Amino acid sequence: MLYTQGMEENKNILKQWVLSAINNRSGKELKEIFETIPNIDIAEAISDVKDPKQLLYIFRVVGSEYSAEFFAELSSEQQEIVISAFSDKELMELISDSFADDIVDTIEEMPANIVSRVLKACPKDLRGDVNRLLNYKENTAGSVMTTEYIEMKDSTTVKDAIQIIRDKGKDAETIYTVFVRDSKRTLVGTVELSDLIFSKETDVLSDIMDKDFVSCNVNDDQEDVAKKFKRYDLTAMAVVNSENKIVGIITIDDVVDIIEQETSEDIAHMAAITDMEDPYLKTPVLKLVLKCVPWILALMVLQVFTTMILSGFEDRIAQFAILAVFTPLIMDAGGNSGGQTTTMIVRSLSLDEFGGKDYPKVILKELRVASIIGGIVSAFAFGWLMFEMSVGIVNTSSIAERVTATGGNFTAYMALVAALVAGTLFVTMIISRLVGCSLPFLAKLVKLDPAVMCGPITTTLVDIISLVTYFLLWTNIIGPALGF
Amino acid sequence: MLYTQGMEENKNILKQWVLSAINNRSGKELKEIFETIPNIDIAEAISDVKDPKQLLYIFRVVGSEYSAEFFAELSSEQQEIVISAFSDKELMELISDSFADDIVDTIEEMPANIVSRVLKACPKDLRGDVNRLLNYKENTAGSVMTTEYIEMKDSTTVKDAIQIIRDKGKDAETIYTVFVRDSKRTLVGTVELSDLIFSKETDVLSDIMDKDFVSCNVNDDQEDVAKKFKRYDLTAMAVVNSENKIVGIITIDDVVDIIEQETSEDIAHMAAITDMEDPYLKTPVLKLVLKCVPWILALMVLQVFTTMILSGFEDRIAQFAILAVFTPLIMDAGGNSGGQTTTMIVRSLSLDEFGGKDYPKVILKELRVASIIGGIVSAFAFGWLMFEMSVGIVNTSSIAERVTATGGNFTAYMALVAALVAGTLFVTMIISRLVGCSLPFLAKLVKLDPAVMCGPITTTLVDIISLVTYFLLWTNIIGPALGF
Repeated sequence: MLYTQGMEENKNILKQWVLSAINNRSGKELKEIFETIPNIDIAEAISDVKDPKQLLYIFRVVGSEYSAEFFAELSSEQQEIVISAFSDKELMELISDSFADDIVDTIEEMPANIVSRVLKACPKDLRGDVNRLLNYKENTAGSVMTTEYIEMKDSTTVKDAIQIIRDKGKDAETIYTVFVRDSKRTLVGTVELSDLIFSKETDVLSDIMDKDFVSCNVNDDQEDVAKKFKRYDLTAMAVVNSENKIVGIITIDDVVDIIEQETSEDIAHMAAITDMEDPYLKTPVLKLVLKCVPWILALMVLQVFTTMILSGFEDRIAQFAILAVFTPLIMDAGGNSGGQTTTMIVRSLSLDEFGGKDYPKVILKELRVASIIGGIVSAFAFGWLMFEMSVGIVNTSSIAERVTATGGNFTAYMALVAALVAGTLFVTMIISRLVGCSLPFLAKLVKLDPAVMCGPITTTLVDIISLVTYFLLWTNIIGPALGF
Repeated sequence: MLYTQGMEENKNILKQWVLSAINNRSGKELKEIFETIPNIDIAEAISDVKDPKQLLYIFRVVGSEYSAEFFAELSSEQQEIVISAFSDKELMELISDSFADDIVDTIEEMPANIVSRVLKACPKDLRGDVNRLLNYKENTAGSVMTTEYIEMKDSTTVKDAIQIIRDKGKDAETIYTVFVRDSKRTLVGTVELSDLIFSKETDVLSDIMDKDFVSCNVNDDQEDVAKKFKRYDLTAMAVVNSENKIVGIITIDDVVDIIEQETSEDIAHMAAITDMEDPYLKTPVLKLVLKCVPWILALMVLQVFTTMILSGFEDRIAQFAILAVFTPLIMDAGGNSGGQTTTMIVRSLSLDEFGGKDYPKVILKELRVASIIGGIVSAFAFGWLMFEMSVGIVNTSSIAERVTATGGNFTAYMALVAALVAGTLFVTMIISRLVGCSLPFLAKLVKLDPAVMCGPITTTLVDIISLVTYFLLWTNIIGPALGF
């Protein structure tokens, strides 16, 4: 029966099963496990096995069909243990069954002596590929591509093509897309294996190939590559150099990882965290601190403006302390509202739902959305504050003092205070959405990642504008009406 | 040469090219465009063409090789125009070239009369598939699967299998994975086309099939399906019913869309926005308002606690107004810090980097991270506030009054105020990270989406705790030291 993945109990059962097979030296049982259960589930079940003898036994028994793929799923600590314990011959066998990009992933995290042992174990061709892959800049198409692909001349017949695939396909990352070049070695088309299957044996590749294929350059950003995959529903894409000659391919399973990595980066940036390269549990404590603390400090320094504004109004707060009670409410509402807009716009920009030229459309839409939200929120806030003050949730002693001092009407004075907050919120809602939708476009215009810090900067700007509005409304309209 | 995708100028050039081919009735030119340029680029270039005659001309000329795929890329408005203009025969031809899942996507947004015309045009088998797909619950495997797949008995030989693919493969969504059933119609394995290519013609599928294949149930959540695809690096997966019989398949290109949709949902929830089903520009203004405004109002009501706390300390603020100046700084730092933690934890949970049982590990790690961040932030804040007060960024008249009243030392009094804020921040940093990392686990425990509202609720909780700390420190230690 099918092994049920991901259940904690099953993981432990599987671990016991694998370990008992190893300890009983039962190669048959171990092979059966590898035949019926995906490699990654087995690797995860034994992720805390660090005994070289136990790990080596697995590789000696399961055979080349599984070993390279299983090796790629191990933790880098386990990979290091295995490589150190391997004889040169065993290492060469493993390496020659591996893809160049998996080898690169492995040795990127290894100490120098292991790296040189691995490189020495590579056949010459493969070593060249590995070295080249190691040299591409991080996050480019070159750094994620693999060099095992099938390329044929455009004059090849379907019959020969299928024979070539039979002969060389085992070493290729995919045999489902064949890349076609002309006599000058320029990439001119792609042929799907399905096209070969459905064509006559005598057809020539140049007649059946897709000329509307999509490719990318080695130096393209991996995020752009992922977008092309999504847009054109591809499963494999050629990576070409500046002369339009193919140098590697990228397959869809790598693209899924790229999408997740880029999304995690965006999400981290929106929350004011520096990129998380590693999973949370594997990131050391001090690294986590370094990723978080600079932004907390920077945003605290940015608060200098709100501090200055509040400080400038200290005397008025001392006169009428209820003013201080409502500042967090106003600032939080502005922050939440600006955050909503920024998040929507950043996500839409990163999914290419619209581009820079659509800014006028977006700002007009936001003006309408913001006016309605401003109306609703300020009307609600007016009613809510009247309620809070009436039932005594908010201390109204400073209003009572005013009534005594000026002989005014208590309810009218409460209404004036509620109107001060409601009016400020109306302005805040509109400003927060306009700032929140404009900053990501501005970031894009100056070629910055729209996700970086747009959220916190929106909040800070909105805080400043709403506090100034609050105190201007107070000084010029509400304060005088209360006899200040 | 290769058409350069995504450039605004090219889009206009392409549009003119297509339109001139249509207007000149040049079928040859139009065919050439379709041969050399991806369908989605052409569809996007003519996205504002609404003339039934122009659209019909395209479908009459380009032939069945492109028409179904091109139709799927048109906007639903254009699709409606085309269907209305088609004769019954043309509609039947288009439909029989289409996949059941594309038909479902099309008619889900159409008026009833179009839906019934399309269903009538479906061949009987296809109509059954479409109706079944329409009935699966949204976001389940059943609702995203397609019903065009290749299934064979386990006793089939490789030679026969390749012949079956040649005969029936044109109608299948993928021919790269063949699904294998036993005599009871139970799914027992999968065979990759590459395995067929590399095997002997006389081999039988049951000998070469993968038995460690992965499948999902029709009722599984699409997010879980996407996770399996990532975990096992799949390109196609069987969807089975409760009797383990295959009823459909899901392919990797659909999974990429699912991942994006689920991530957008998470991101929206973290920013307190209700799900965005449609792209921003296509969402009506009032719908945007409805997605945003309830959360703003709800969070404002939640602020009742901070309002009460501040209000309870109104008298003390009136006595010493500088206290009000620092509340936004403390609340924002707490919000930012809690947001960082929540974001990291929510993302890690949604990528399955860890699960509920890892909570103790996470909270221990957070305690260490939080203590260090608390130390750094409070030390920095102490220095920064001393600076702000010394250079007059913060109005220190209330401190000067105190010095006059008690005969104390001005610098010592400033230091006491700075220490009040620094001490509060130390507590706030620790609490914010502990709350921020715990809430997502709590949400998971009670089977809620960890992304929903964890951010804003963290902020509100942290606000309350930090304000209470602030005023407790003031009332019990700093206030008395300043002679209050």
